[in-house]
Amino acid sequence: MSTPSSTALERVLAALKQEAKGKSSKVYNYVIPSLWNAQGYKGKEVIPTKDGHLLVNPYHFYIDVVEKLLQNDPQPGAVYSQSISQLTGDTSKGDWIQQATAYSMMPRASAAYDHDRTGTLEDKNLYGLKETGTFIKTLALLPYLKEMGVTLMYLLPIAAYTRMYKKGDMGSPYGVKDFYTIDQDLFDPITGDELTVNDQFKAFVEACHRLGMRVALDFIPRTNARDSKLVLSHPDWFYWIKKADEAVYKTPWVDGVKKLTIPEPEHAKYIYTSPEVLSFINLFQQNPKDASPVKWKAITEQVTAHPELNHLEVIEQETGLTVAPAFADVMNDPQPAWSDVTFFRLFLDDPLAAQPFLKDKKHNPYMLFDVAKSSLNPGGKPNKALWDTLADIIPFYQREFGIDGMRIDMGHALPESLTHLIIGNARKNDPNFCFIAEELQGKRAEVAKGQGYNMIIGDGFYMEPRLATFDYHGFAYSAAALPCPVFACAETHDTPRIAARDGGRVTAKLLTILNLFTPNTVPFINSGQEVYEVQPINTGLDCRPNEALLLPANDPFFGKLALFDKYAFHYTQDGFEELPRMLKQLSSFRQANLSLFTTKENYIPIWFASPRDPAVGFGYVDHTVAQPSEAYVVLGHTNTQAAETIIVDLRFVYEKLGVVSRHAQLVFSTHEHPRPITEYNFDSNWSLWMQPGEVKIIRVSR
Amino acid sequence: MSTPSSTALERVLAALKQEAKGKSSKVYNYVIPSLWNAQGYKGKEVIPTKDGHLLVNPYHFYIDVVEKLLQNDPQPGAVYSQSISQLTGDTSKGDWIQQATAYSMMPRASAAYDHDRTGTLEDKNLYGLKETGTFIKTLALLPYLKEMGVTLMYLLPIAAYTRMYKKGDMGSPYGVKDFYTIDQDLFDPITGDELTVNDQFKAFVEACHRLGMRVALDFIPRTNARDSKLVLSHPDWFYWIKKADEAVYKTPWVDGVKKLTIPEPEHAKYIYTSPEVLSFINLFQQNPKDASPVKWKAITEQVTAHPELNHLEVIEQETGLTVAPAFADVMNDPQPAWSDVTFFRLFLDDPLAAQPFLKDKKHNPYMLFDVAKSSLNPGGKPNKALWDTLADIIPFYQREFGIDGMRIDMGHALPESLTHLIIGNARKNDPNFCFIAEELQGKRAEVAKGQGYNMIIGDGFYMEPRLATFDYHGFAYSAAALPCPVFACAETHDTPRIAARDGGRVTAKLLTILNLFTPNTVPFINSGQEVYEVQPINTGLDCRPNEALLLPANDPFFGKLALFDKYAFHYTQDGFEELPRMLKQLSSFRQANLSLFTTKENYIPIWFASPRDPAVGFGYVDHTVAQPSEAYVVLGHTNTQAAETIIVDLRFVYEKLGVVSRHAQLVFSTHEHPRPITEYNFDSNWSLWMQPGEVKIIRVSR
Repeated sequence: MSTPSSTALERVLAALKQEAKGKSSKVYNYVIPSLWNAQGYKGKEVIPTKDGHLLVNPYHFYIDVVEKLLQNDPQPGAVYSQSISQLTGDTSKGDWIQQATAYSMMPRASAAYDHDRTGTLEDKNLYGLKETGTFIKTLALLPYLKEMGVTLMYLLPIAAYTRMYKKGDMGSPYGVKDFYTIDQDLFDPITGDELTVNDQFKAFVEACHRLGMRVALDFIPRTNARDSKLVLSHPDWFYWIKKADEAVYKTPWVDGVKKLTIPEPEHAKYIYTSPEVLSFINLFQQNPKDASPVKWKAITEQVTAHPELNHLEVIEQETGLTVAPAFADVMNDPQPAWSDVTFFRLFLDDPLAAQPFLKDKKHNPYMLFDVAKSSLNPGGKPNKALWDTLADIIPFYQREFGIDGMRIDMGHALPESLTHLIIGNARKNDPNFCFIAEELQGKRAEVAKGQGYNMIIGDGFYMEPRLATFDYHGFAYSAAALPCPVFACAETHDTPRIAARDGGRVTAKLLTILNLFTPNTVPFINSGQEVYEVQPINTGLDCRPNEALLLPANDPFFGKLALFDKYAFHYTQDGFEELPRMLKQLSSFRQANLSLFTTKENYIPIWFASPRDPAVGFGYVDHTVAQPSEAYVVLGHTNTQAAETIIVDLRFVYEKLGVVSRHAQLVFSTHEHPRPITEYNFDSNWSLWMQPGEVKIIRVSR
Repeated sequence: MSTPSSTALERVLAALKQEAKGKSSKVYNYVIPSLWNAQGYKGKEVIPTKDGHLLVNPYHFYIDVVEKLLQNDPQPGAVYSQSISQLTGDTSKGDWIQQATAYSMMPRASAAYDHDRTGTLEDKNLYGLKETGTFIKTLALLPYLKEMGVTLMYLLPIAAYTRMYKKGDMGSPYGVKDFYTIDQDLFDPITGDELTVNDQFKAFVEACHRLGMRVALDFIPRTNARDSKLVLSHPDWFYWIKKADEAVYKTPWVDGVKKLTIPEPEHAKYIYTSPEVLSFINLFQQNPKDASPVKWKAITEQVTAHPELNHLEVIEQETGLTVAPAFADVMNDPQPAWSDVTFFRLFLDDPLAAQPFLKDKKHNPYMLFDVAKSSLNPGGKPNKALWDTLADIIPFYQREFGIDGMRIDMGHALPESLTHLIIGNARKNDPNFCFIAEELQGKRAEVAKGQGYNMIIGDGFYMEPRLATFDYHGFAYSAAALPCPVFACAETHDTPRIAARDGGRVTAKLLTILNLFTPNTVPFINSGQEVYEVQPINTGLDCRPNEALLLPANDPFFGKLALFDKYAFHYTQDGFEELPRMLKQLSSFRQANLSLFTTKENYIPIWFASPRDPAVGFGYVDHTVAQPSEAYVVLGHTNTQAAETIIVDLRFVYEKLGVVSRHAQLVFSTHEHPRPITEYNFDSNWSLWMQPGEVKIIRVSR
C-alpha cells in the first residue's frame, strides 16, 4: 500500500494494484508492440504473435513495468523527484548535455497504440483503456529507450493545450492554454480516480531519474493559446480585435522590403508608412476589461460559475471581441495567420523604432511582425507582471517535477532581458539546469551561449539528409568548430522522416549511427525514427508537397500527422527490430568510451583520397595521455546506392598515436561481423570496400 | 425454440441462441475476415478495421448467419435434407454437374481463422472457441461463395481420420478411420453439447440446399487408415505384417520393368520371379484373429471396455502384428510407403495372373502394386462382405445428409464390378446422383462414362498453368471434344497454387476467369485461390522443391500445409477483394446465359492470326435458333508479361450469325470498362490491344 510518504511512482503502483483487483481472470485481447517489453514481462497470460505483438493483461503488465522501475535505486534512498544534477551533485552548469543522447518524444503519439486492434485509437477501447499515449504507458518504453542508450528524454509540449480553433482531430500541443497543468489527453484512466495527470507525469520523471535518464521539456513563452487561461485574469496581456474582423485580419504587406525579411528597427520607415499596415493597426481594439469593467465582471462571474464554458467563447459572444491570431515574425510572409495561438504583449508601449511614426496616431495595443520579434524591436516599458509570470514557470516545473532542462521555443524572439530573467530564475533553483536554444544557425551559437544556453538546435535536420550534395559532409566536419554543441539529428518533429528521404532506410541507418559519434554534437533520435517511421509528425520544415501522404492508403493513419491527429507509430512494421538492435549494441560501447567521444579535444577529422569522396570519418584519441595506446576511427559511407572502395587516410591518427600501426580491429559494422582489418594500402592508408551506407568502427592499437 | 420437427439448421440456431445467453455484454475481441460477411451482419458491436477484419460478437454473428440462411426457402416447406435433384425433380442422371461451378473446400482449413489474433489457431481460443474450420463457421462463407457463382460445394474428406502415424500437426483427412462419423476436428463447440458434429454437417448441407448449392464429397474406398475401425470387426479385410518388420518393409524392385510402370497382368512374369518380391511377400502374416482367436477375443474385450485405447496399438502390443502400410499402385516407384493408410483386401485370393507363379508357394494374403491396382489385376474371389460394406457407405450419406454427388478416390484402381456396385447402389436411392472419376487422362473419359461417371477430373491443373508452352491452348481447345466434362482448374489441393506459378496473380486472374467460359468443362475454384493464396494445401502433384516454403518466414503458417497442419488462408492479405469482386460481377452474367455457355453445341472456337498467338478464344451462339440475334466471344491474352495487339478472327462466329456485324460491345474486361468495340481490321477481324493476361468478353449483335 502507498503511504503518505510514498513516491509518485509508488503511488502509481498502488493505484494499479487497486484497479487490477478482480481483473486477473478477465479475458484481455490487448496487445503491446514487443519492443515495449524490454523489461521482460513474462506473465503466464502472455502470448507473443509472429507479427511483433504481445498479448498481455494490461494491469499485470504495467504493474510489472512499475515494479521493475522501482527496483532501480542508483542512490539508495534518494529523492528522485529532484533533477539528476541535484541528485548527483553535478557541477556542469547544464553542460551535462554534451554527454547526453536525446530522444525527442511526443508522449501522446510515442506511447499510442491500437491495443485492441480495432483499427482506431479510442479514448476508451474495448477494455475502457486509453489508446493514445499517456505517461503511464510511456513508462513501458523507458527500459527500451535506456537499452538503446538514451539518457535524455526531450518532450514536446505537455501542458494543457487549446481545443478552440484546433487543427486535426486532437489539436497541437504548441497552443498552450495553461502552463500549470499537464494536458488531460495524457491522463491515463488505468490508475483510476486517485491520481491526477500531474501525479502521473511526476511518476514518469521519477522513473526516468531512477534509470539515470534526464527529462527536458519544451517551454513556449512567446505565444499562447488564444483562449489561454491568462486571458481571463489578464486581458491586458493580450491583443484584441473584433470577432467580426477576423475574416479580413491578415498580416499586412510592406512595400520596399523583400519576402521573409526579419524585421529590424531600420525597417520601421517602410513598415509604418505602409497604408496596409496602418489600416491593419486600426483593427486592434481596447481590451474588453478596460472597455467595460462592468461587463467584464459579469463575464468572469459567469465563467467561474460554469467551468464547462469556454471563456473566450463567452467573451466573444458578450463583447464581440476576440484575441488576435498570431503570425510569423518575419515580414512579407505569404503564410496565413496561425489560428490557434496569439502573442503575449511583452511591452506596454510600441516598439521604440515605431514610436516616432505612431505618436500622433491614436491606436490600441497591436501585434505586428516587429512586435512579435521583440528581441530586435523592444518597446520601452516591459510588461513586468507578465515577465515575472513567464519567469516563474520553469521554477514551477523544477519544484513540482524535478525536470532537468528546457528548450525555449522562439527564444530568438524574446527580449534579451526576459531571456536573462527566465534563465536566471531557473538557475537559482538548479545551477546545473540545462537550456537549449531554438537557434538553427551555427553563427548564432556564440550569442546563445552568452545568454546562458548550453546548446543550440542547429541545422543538422536540414544538412544531414543531403548526402549527395555534400551538405552532410559540411555539417559533420564543421560541428567541432562551434562554441557549443548542436543536435546531431537527421529529422525532427517538424521535418520529413529520414527513412522517407533519399536512400530510405539505408540513409536512416547510416545517419542514426553516425550521429552517435559526431564531434561536438548531441545525438538526437526523433521518436519513431528508430523503427523507420516514414510519416512525419508535422510538415513544418523542409517538407515536400506529398509529405503528409507517405503511408499506403489502407494504413489506419494515412494522411494523419501526430502533431494534430491521433497517431501511433508503426512499432511492428517489417524491420522494426533492426535499428533498436544496433543502437543497443552500440550503447554499451559508446558508454564505455563516453568521455573519449564527447571531449572535443580528442577528435581528429579523418580524410579520404579526395574531399569529394562519398565518406566521412571521425577519429578519437585521448588527448590527455602522452602515449595513447589506441584510437577509434568511425567511418560512414555516404553513397547509399552502391558499394565501392574507399581510401582512408590515417596520417593524423598515426601522428597522435606516435606510430604507424597495423594492429586494427573492426569492432562494429552495419554490414559485417567484427574482424581484424588487413586492407592496408600505403603505410598510412587503408583501402576499404564499403557497402552502400555502411558504418564501420575500427580500433587502432599501438 | 427448436421442436422435434425442427430441421438441422433450425436446431443449430436454437443451440446458438441458448449458448448466446448472457454473452451480449461480454467483450469479444474476435475478428472475422470481412469477406466472410457477405450476408451483411450489422450488429451494433461490429467494428471494421482497415486491414480487412470485422470485430464481432461471435454468437450474434453466427446467429445472424443462420437466421439469414433460414430465410432462403426456394421451395416453400420443402425438406432440404434431400439432394437438390430430389428436391427439384431433376432428370439429368447426374449430368447437372455440367452446369455447375465447383468450389473445392477443405472445411478444416477453409473456415479456419485466427479470430483472436494470437498468431496461433487454438482449439480453444481466448473465448473458448475453435479457430480451425468447422461446419458452423463454414456457414458464414456460403453467402460469399454463392455471390461468386459457386453452385457446387465439393468437400475434401470429412470422415473421421486417423491420428496414428499422422503427418503434420493435425493429420491428413485422407486416412479415413470411420466412414460413418464426421471427424471430431470439424465439431464446433459454439453450439454447446446438444449437437453432434454429424448434426452440424447436416445443417451445413441443408444451408447449401437452401441456397441452391449442391454438395459433393470425396469417397475413399480403396484405402483406409491403418487403425481403421473395421480392423477390429474384420481383421481379415486387411493385410498384416510383423510390427518388427516395419523398418525393412518397402515396396520391392522389379527388374526388367521401367520406373513408374502401371502393373498389368503381362507383368506377372517379371514381378513373381523377382527375389525381392518373393521375400517381400514372405513378410506378410496371418491376421491376428485367425492366428489366435482366444487372444483376439481378449483384445476386443479390452478395447471395448477402454474406448480411450487405440485398438491397433493394443493389437501391436499383444500380437506383435500391425496392419501393413500402403504404397503407390505403380511399379518401381522410389517414394516410400504411405505410413498412415493401408489397402483394403478386395479379393480373398491372389491376382489371377499371379496365381500360376504362387500356387506352390505357401504364403499369407499380401499387398503389392498389382494387388493395389485391382482394376487391372483382379483375383477370382471377391471379398463380398467388404464390397457390400463399401457399397453401403454412399447410401448412408444420402440418407443421413442428402448429399448430391461423390468423387471416388482412386476409382481407377477399383475392380469394375465393385465400381458398378457402388454407383448402382447410390443411383437406386437417387438416380440423379453425380459421380466424379479420379481420372486425369482425357483418353480414359469414355471408359469412365461407361462406368456411370458423369465427369472426370482431367489434367487442367497440369496443362493450364503452362501458358508459355501452349499446354493451356491444348487444354482449352481440346476439352470440347471429350465425351464428358473435365474440371477447368488451374490448381487443386495437391498442386502448386496458381498465384505462385509463372505470371503470379496475373495468371491466376486470367485462368480463374477463363475457366468460367471454357467449353465442356466445370469451373473449379480451389479454396484460397480466389484470394491469391500462394501456399499449397499439399505438395502431392507437380510441385517444385521449395513449394512448401513460399510464405515469408514470419508468416504464422510458414512451411505449413493445410492437408496436414493447422492452417488458415490469407483472407485479408493485400488484394484479397479483387478476384471475389470480379467473380461476383461475372456470376450473374454467366447465370443469365448459363445454357448458352454450357451447351457444347453452342461453342465455336475462336482463332487468331496464327495458332501460336498468345491468345485463346471461345465463341458462343445459340445453335437451336435459326437466326440467332447475338454471339458472345470470350478472349484471353496468355502473354502475362506484356501488352500487345491480338488479331481476332471472327469468321466462324459471323458464319453462325449469318452476317458480318460491326455491332460489338465489350461487356466485361479485367482491365477496362465496358464500351463499344470499334477496333475493326478487315471485315472479319478485330485488332485488339490487350493488356498482360487480360480477359475480354464481347457481345456481337446482328
